[in-house]
Amino acid sequence: MSNKETVFFNNAPKILGTGAVVGKRESEGPLAEYFDELIPDGRYGERTWEQAESKFHNAAFGYALEMSQLKSADIGCVLSGDLLNQCVASSFAWRDANLPFIGLYGACSTFAEGLALGSVLVNSGAFDTAAVSVSSHFCTAERQYRNPLAYGGQRPPTAQRTVTGAGCAIIGKNGNGKPFAKCATFGSVVDSGISDANNMGAAMAPAAYETLKKHFENTNTKPQDFDLIATGDLGEVGRKILIDLLSRDGINLGERYIDCGCEMFDIHRQDMHAGASGCACLATVFSGYIMEGLINGRWKRVLIAGTGSLQSPLTVQQKETIPGICHAVEIGV
Amino acid sequence: MSNKETVFFNNAPKILGTGAVVGKRESEGPLAEYFDELIPDGRYGERTWEQAESKFHNAAFGYALEMSQLKSADIGCVLSGDLLNQCVASSFAWRDANLPFIGLYGACSTFAEGLALGSVLVNSGAFDTAAVSVSSHFCTAERQYRNPLAYGGQRPPTAQRTVTGAGCAIIGKNGNGKPFAKCATFGSVVDSGISDANNMGAAMAPAAYETLKKHFENTNTKPQDFDLIATGDLGEVGRKILIDLLSRDGINLGERYIDCGCEMFDIHRQDMHAGASGCACLATVFSGYIMEGLINGRWKRVLIAGTGSLQSPLTVQQKETIPGICHAVEIGV
Repeated sequence: MSNKETVFFNNAPKILGTGAVVGKRESEGPLAEYFDELIPDGRYGERTWEQAESKFHNAAFGYALEMSQLKSADIGCVLSGDLLNQCVASSFAWRDANLPFIGLYGACSTFAEGLALGSVLVNSGAFDTAAVSVSSHFCTAERQYRNPLAYGGQRPPTAQRTVTGAGCAIIGKNGNGKPFAKCATFGSVVDSGISDANNMGAAMAPAAYETLKKHFENTNTKPQDFDLIATGDLGEVGRKILIDLLSRDGINLGERYIDCGCEMFDIHRQDMHAGASGCACLATVFSGYIMEGLINGRWKRVLIAGTGSLQSPLTVQQKETIPGICHAVEIGV
Repeated sequence: MSNKETVFFNNAPKILGTGAVVGKRESEGPLAEYFDELIPDGRYGERTWEQAESKFHNAAFGYALEMSQLKSADIGCVLSGDLLNQCVASSFAWRDANLPFIGLYGACSTFAEGLALGSVLVNSGAFDTAAVSVSSHFCTAERQYRNPLAYGGQRPPTAQRTVTGAGCAIIGKNGNGKPFAKCATFGSVVDSGISDANNMGAAMAPAAYETLKKHFENTNTKPQDFDLIATGDLGEVGRKILIDLLSRDGINLGERYIDCGCEMFDIHRQDMHAGASGCACLATVFSGYIMEGLINGRWKRVLIAGTGSLQSPLTVQQKETIPGICHAVEIGV
C-alpha cells in the first residue's frame, strides 16, 4: 500500500542483524564503542584504497550475518552502493559472493534507499532476506571528488569529512522481537541552487526538508511521535538549515533529532569542520549506534533520513548547481 | 514468490507505454523506424553533452507518458540510471519532476535492473505506476571512459560504440491486453578474469550465461519456449561467447536469439566494430523495436537480459579484472 511517496510495509520486514566496520578517525570519535570493528589501516592490508573500501563491505556483511545467525547462502539478494565512479567499491566487493546483486546509486542517501527497497523486496515476498551494504572511504573519495591526498589542500569550515567504513543491514521476513521497517518515503530530486561543492549540507537540507515533511504528512505523524529522528550527513551547516526550514512550517524536531554527520566525530577535538559525510556515515551510525539503541529499548520508534548530494566533479566544473535527495525509513521495535 | 534468484509477478505488472529517443548514428541504423524521435544534434540544443543526455531522459519519458495516456503526476516513482560518474545524467534529468526518485547503477544492465525492480514495486502495490528511464551518450561516455573525442584514438575490432539516447518504460498495475512482466532473474556479479576494457563483450558474456541458465532452471523453461531472447549489448564478440557457453550445456538459443548490440547498427556499413553498447542500447531497442513486436503480436513471450560490465577507468588502471552482471526479465502478452 502506498500513500503518494510513502510505502507501508504490512508484513513488518525485520532487521535481523547489522554490521559496522570503520576506519581510524571514526574509531577515535565518540561512537567508537558501537562499531563491530575498528580498522586503523586505511588500506586494510590491501594494495589500494579502493580494494580496502570493498573489504569494508565484506567485513560489515560478516558481522551482520553473525548477528542474524545466517550464512551467506541464506541471503536472497544484496542491495549495494558507494560513492566511487561506477560504484566499483560495491560491485568488486560482491564478485565472489554468488548472490543476486542490485546496484544502487543514491550518493550518501544510498543506505536509506537500500533499506527502503530491501524492505519492499522482503515485505512483498520477492526475497525472504536482503542485505543492504553501503561504503565510503575518505581516501578514495577525496582524490576522486577533490584533490590528491598528497596535495594537502585546505578545506573551508563548511566542508565535511567522508566516513571510512561500511555498514550492512540484513532484512528478513522472520524474526520476532527484532526491529522492523514500518514504512518508507522515497524522496524526489530537489535542487535549491547551491553551487558550492564544499557546502553539501546546504545542498542536501532542502531535500531532507521535503522528504521529512512528506513523511509526517503521509503517515499523519509529527516529530513528537518519534523517539529518534536521524538524518544521514547534513553536518553542522545542513542540520541548522533543516531545523530552520521545518520550524518555518511550525514543525519542531526538538531534542530527539540528531544528524549522524554531527555525531560521528568530536568535531572540535578532531578538527572535522562541519562534521562527517559519505554513504557510510548513516550506514555505520545506524548499523552500530542506532540499532543498538533499538535492541536495548532506548528508542522504540525511529525515523532515519538518508541525505545525498547528486553532483559529480564534472557537473561542478560545468557550473551546474547541486541537486539533493533524501529517502526516509521508519523503524519500530 | 521467489525461486532463488527469480522473482515471479503474480499480479502481472503491465508495460503501459515506452519511449525511445536516439542520436545520429542510431538514426542511420536499421532500427531507426522504431524509435519515437531521432536527434541528429549530439548536444540536443544544450550547452553540454551531459545536459543533452539528461534531455534524452525527459524526451523518452514524454513519449512513454503519451503512449500510456498518463500525465507525469500520475507516476508513482522513477527508477533511473546511466553510465556517468555519480549517475548525473539521471539525477539532473529528474530534478524538476517532483517524483520519487530511485537511483540505480547496473552499468549497461540498468534498464533490465530497473524493469525488474519496477515490476516488484508495482506487483507488490508499493506504487501503482513506476517509470524506468535509462540513458547513455557516445560523447559523454567516450571522454569519461576512454579518450577525449578530439584525440581521435583508434579502436580495436572488439570495441563497441556507446548508444546515444534514452529509453523509458512505464509499468502500471492496470492495463488489460498490454504486455506484462511475468518474472525476473536478478544476476550475481561474475568475474571471469577478462582485463581488456576494449572487450566488454567477453567480460559480460559469462554473466549473461549464468543468469540465462538460472532463469531457464528456475522457471523450468528452455529457449524454445520463447519467441524472442534478447541480450543487451554483448556485441559480436560477447554474443558468440554466450552461444558457445550455453551450447556446451546443451542449451541452444537458436534463431530466436538476438543481441541488441548487434541489431542497433549495420555494423559493416556503419563501421561499428563489434557493435553497440551502453545503457541506452537495450533501453531503446526494447522501448522501440521489441515493444512494437509485443504489441503487434510478432512475439508473445520475450526474455530480455540486460548485460553490464562493472569496471571504472580507475580499476582498469589498477590492473583489476572486469566483473560483469546480467539481469533478465520475462515479458508476456
